[in-house]
Amino acid sequence: MKFEEISGGVTAPKGFKASGVRCGIKKINKKDLAIVFSEAKAQSAGVFTLNTIAAAPVVVSKKHLSSGSCQAVVVNSGCANAFTGQRGLENSISMTKSVATKLDIESRDALVASTGVIGDYLPMDKIEKGIDQACAELSASGDSDAAEAIMTTDTFPKKVAVEFKLAGKTVRVGGMAKGAGMIAPNMATMLAFITTDIKIDHLLLRRCLKEAVAKSFNMITVDGETSTNDMAIVLANGLSEASLEDTETGSGIFKEALEFVCSTLAKMIVRDGEGATKFVELTVKGANKSEEARQIGMAIANSILVKTAFYGEDANLGRIIAAAGHAGVDIDPKQVELFFSSEKVAEGGAYLDFDESKVNLALKEKEFEFTVVVGQGPGEATIWTTDLSHEYVDINAHYRT
Amino acid sequence: MKFEEISGGVTAPKGFKASGVRCGIKKINKKDLAIVFSEAKAQSAGVFTLNTIAAAPVVVSKKHLSSGSCQAVVVNSGCANAFTGQRGLENSISMTKSVATKLDIESRDALVASTGVIGDYLPMDKIEKGIDQACAELSASGDSDAAEAIMTTDTFPKKVAVEFKLAGKTVRVGGMAKGAGMIAPNMATMLAFITTDIKIDHLLLRRCLKEAVAKSFNMITVDGETSTNDMAIVLANGLSEASLEDTETGSGIFKEALEFVCSTLAKMIVRDGEGATKFVELTVKGANKSEEARQIGMAIANSILVKTAFYGEDANLGRIIAAAGHAGVDIDPKQVELFFSSEKVAEGGAYLDFDESKVNLALKEKEFEFTVVVGQGPGEATIWTTDLSHEYVDINAHYRT
Repeated sequence: MKFEEISGGVTAPKGFKASGVRCGIKKINKKDLAIVFSEAKAQSAGVFTLNTIAAAPVVVSKKHLSSGSCQAVVVNSGCANAFTGQRGLENSISMTKSVATKLDIESRDALVASTGVIGDYLPMDKIEKGIDQACAELSASGDSDAAEAIMTTDTFPKKVAVEFKLAGKTVRVGGMAKGAGMIAPNMATMLAFITTDIKIDHLLLRRCLKEAVAKSFNMITVDGETSTNDMAIVLANGLSEASLEDTETGSGIFKEALEFVCSTLAKMIVRDGEGATKFVELTVKGANKSEEARQIGMAIANSILVKTAFYGEDANLGRIIAAAGHAGVDIDPKQVELFFSSEKVAEGGAYLDFDESKVNLALKEKEFEFTVVVGQGPGEATIWTTDLSHEYVDINAHYRT
Repeated sequence: MKFEEISGGVTAPKGFKASGVRCGIKKINKKDLAIVFSEAKAQSAGVFTLNTIAAAPVVVSKKHLSSGSCQAVVVNSGCANAFTGQRGLENSISMTKSVATKLDIESRDALVASTGVIGDYLPMDKIEKGIDQACAELSASGDSDAAEAIMTTDTFPKKVAVEFKLAGKTVRVGGMAKGAGMIAPNMATMLAFITTDIKIDHLLLRRCLKEAVAKSFNMITVDGETSTNDMAIVLANGLSEASLEDTETGSGIFKEALEFVCSTLAKMIVRDGEGATKFVELTVKGANKSEEARQIGMAIANSILVKTAFYGEDANLGRIIAAAGHAGVDIDPKQVELFFSSEKVAEGGAYLDFDESKVNLALKEKEFEFTVVVGQGPGEATIWTTDLSHEYVDINAHYRT
């Protein structure tokens, strides 16, 4: 590894400040509003939910990001501002305006994100006060408060930072995320905010982000849902004075560091599935394309039959085969191989006479992995997921009661 | 209704016999082998699973059906003969040969279906004996035994029959099915066998079956899984002497009768979901095409967030909106309307100030319906589904233990 993990989060890179406060959106006594601010205008990029019923903050942030730069992000938890029509849009715009006024930047340089219950309107009076306070409390050590304030039913704040050398300069990438699908899917939004002090053009930054997200956030699934509010944003303020074009290998190192930050956060989200008792790494190999490998892997990972079998620690492997077969990708059963805990259990369209006790032992672990080979192609994907437990049903059935 | 429901099942139409016996595939003392036989060779059609890892009986029956006719169907429960390679294929072929020898027909006029655990081989010695016995016991009143013998974890046998007049003759359509997705998805195969004494060409019969299946079996979902063994078969032996071409309206009546038989069986399957505490009818309207309406409806019906909310009787309607949004169909949120128990709860991209107590009351019913309007288009689909309960997780987590 050419980069090193360091302590810290979004304020690890030079010139970034953050804060997290409680303004009263949540009924419980927890922080619910965060701001991330860059001292210098930052080249920026984002990826957003594909849910066609996108929440107001998604619409506004997408628009503001079209310039390729921004300087601040305001995030609230406790209310998604989704499915709230024109009034919702006006509220999101109003949040960016308030932040911009306070921080003396242009409102199109402020982004906004929200997470929480769908259909409710934001309590704008509380939010305005929260923005005032959060702007006043911005600091280079505010990353923990910010990571806490974007939590909904997450059981721990999620942050990570790395640094590496580029052309003799120290470059850092930091990040924070929220999301805990299995707990409270009403709030299952996945939000990720990444900061870096590398000098980079927003078009290249966007490509790097897309690649990193494809291998991280897009490879996790807890319940197969795509929230109305999902977004991942990256801000690059250039204050390290190391430019990505400085060296030939620069792009490679940065991409690896960014991918590490994203996949570390992504795995934290999977691990934080309350109700989840297993962390499962599933690799699909031999597909024609990596997108097809992902599609097959997602069909397996989202199969509630597979998930419940994992919960029961039951080596009911036929469910994996059946799920792979209904992924919508043409698979020749004769080519299918299944490996479980390095034990080959199926080959040539049928089970082998394998040692079931080994598989059963693997399933009893809190974390395990398995591999499905579907052919001879180069397409490969690794997906992280969880089981489906009683607790999941409990939490989701009676979430509001 | 131009047709009338009568008692009976697959032996209601003229010239059909059936039987169901126990040959010992199942460990418990229950019937596990059924045969349906037509005295005359029947024009036949089938629809089969889209799972690319199709079970051996699916491969064999598809091939035999290519002639457009058949005379017997042998079905076993307790073992799916899926993911069993060359040996599995030979076993399925062997079943058709044994039935054909016993019944003095050609083996390509015999079809075969299996349902049960994936990956196990059929106990062929037991099956051969079972076929002998079942052939000996064929009778015009064997429809109940047959419907019982194809059950896996179904809690009741599923059969239905109707009759109508066509050109002065009495025509009957009968059917039986198995499937209880929520109980034991290891055995979640949906099998349906339909018989009729109408005179019809197999090409027209196939079109009619496809249309009926599209509006019935393809509109139910319990866990979003497509089994390796699913199939629906129809046999038309012409013994009523009423030909579908006899009258202009003939085709219409027959189609309606066939659709009624299929959707009655389909709803029985949904109702038989052990672990399921709700029977939900979901209608999507206003899509561009009916296939898009179905796609949106399936995304909602298969959402485990929606399902768990129903289980909890929680009017968490944002989950329905969010699920509709990630169906992969472009939806304009401003066009979305949601009706619950005839109460309009959402319109124009936001909730209305609706009476939540009415919705809560509806949710407490064992059966309820709701409607999602997604635009102004003509596309419409009605889907039947269930909730997702504790019992579902129980049964599926510890199914084999």
